[in-house]
Amino acid sequence: MLDYPPSLRRLITALRRLPGIGPRSAERIALHILQAEPSLAQELAEALQQARERIHPCPKSRFLAEGGLSPMFSDPRRDPGLICVVERDSDVIAFEKSGAYRGMYFVLGGCLSPLDDIGPEDLHIPDLLDWVRRDRVREVILGLGADTKGETTSLYLTRELKALGIHVTRLATGLSIGTSLEYADALTLTHALQDRKPV
Amino acid sequence: MLDYPPSLRRLITALRRLPGIGPRSAERIALHILQAEPSLAQELAEALQQARERIHPCPKSRFLAEGGLSPMFSDPRRDPGLICVVERDSDVIAFEKSGAYRGMYFVLGGCLSPLDDIGPEDLHIPDLLDWVRRDRVREVILGLGADTKGETTSLYLTRELKALGIHVTRLATGLSIGTSLEYADALTLTHALQDRKPV
Repeated sequence: MLDYPPSLRRLITALRRLPGIGPRSAERIALHILQAEPSLAQELAEALQQARERIHPCPKSRFLAEGGLSPMFSDPRRDPGLICVVERDSDVIAFEKSGAYRGMYFVLGGCLSPLDDIGPEDLHIPDLLDWVRRDRVREVILGLGADTKGETTSLYLTRELKALGIHVTRLATGLSIGTSLEYADALTLTHALQDRKPV
Repeated sequence: MLDYPPSLRRLITALRRLPGIGPRSAERIALHILQAEPSLAQELAEALQQARERIHPCPKSRFLAEGGLSPMFSDPRRDPGLICVVERDSDVIAFEKSGAYRGMYFVLGGCLSPLDDIGPEDLHIPDLLDWVRRDRVREVILGLGADTKGETTSLYLTRELKALGIHVTRLATGLSIGTSLEYADALTLTHALQDRKPV
């Protein structure tokens, strides 16, 4: 059977290893790369190598950085006494886009999940505790999801951080903005009622 | 605002130039590449460069090849007197997967489309006519789509090829296998009726 040339098949195989790219998408992307101007393949190859070489997690915050500490530590407008703990790097960007936060971040690199065999030793928890112990940290905000893994991790971190005498807070739970009541589940409504605010 | 490091933003921008990759997918893929084993980025960068360097259209069939003629010409089991004309490289693979064809292919590189300003000079039509003139080609099968662009191109090619005294055929139109009548459109049914076969 006639097939694509070997180097095209190799490219399709490599593209299929990316998340969300199935066999059809990989083929379409590979053919597009060959038919597009040569700069596309060149730029993508260079960007891949450069990103892989230059990016390392910041040793203090564990957020992706290029060499040394994250720029969050050299920004005088950020409050060094406040740490928001998040699961993934992309959560940092989500908080930054809200514009509602001006403290530091700590990226855990995952959440506790006994079912997936992820325990405290698989996350960067010791780095967080070191940071809290060494610097004058006033408050740690648990910026984790309101799902089972997020809850489990928040409970564990609360215990560890309170043992160090740190003020620990967590994100509010309630209705998502723009949601009508008919789409809110019972548990969300329970939380929204319990945490109701005077107007 | 804190953002991803520059080399990660560059990678996300490069990925967004690929077809079917939106901003969220590009971010997810870039973060996955950084968190996966280094071999993933390495392999993808190498595959991109190799494919771009090695792959060129075969000068005779215009199908993607690595240096020189496509391997279809050196396969003694293929009939050199039969050419199937297709629009895109991926159409060759579709015919090959059917297992129902053992001739040569010619990739036009598109279809005539006055609305998109694509005329005969934008396709590889002269190469096809040269091939037909020089070799002993018995039959040209127009393996183009049953849509307006495919029809226009088939009409044009039929005229050009018949002027050279070539036997020209086209794909049958009718019900897709597995389709129930309720989903077949009126035009498809008309063709299926006109081309009905004795049983």
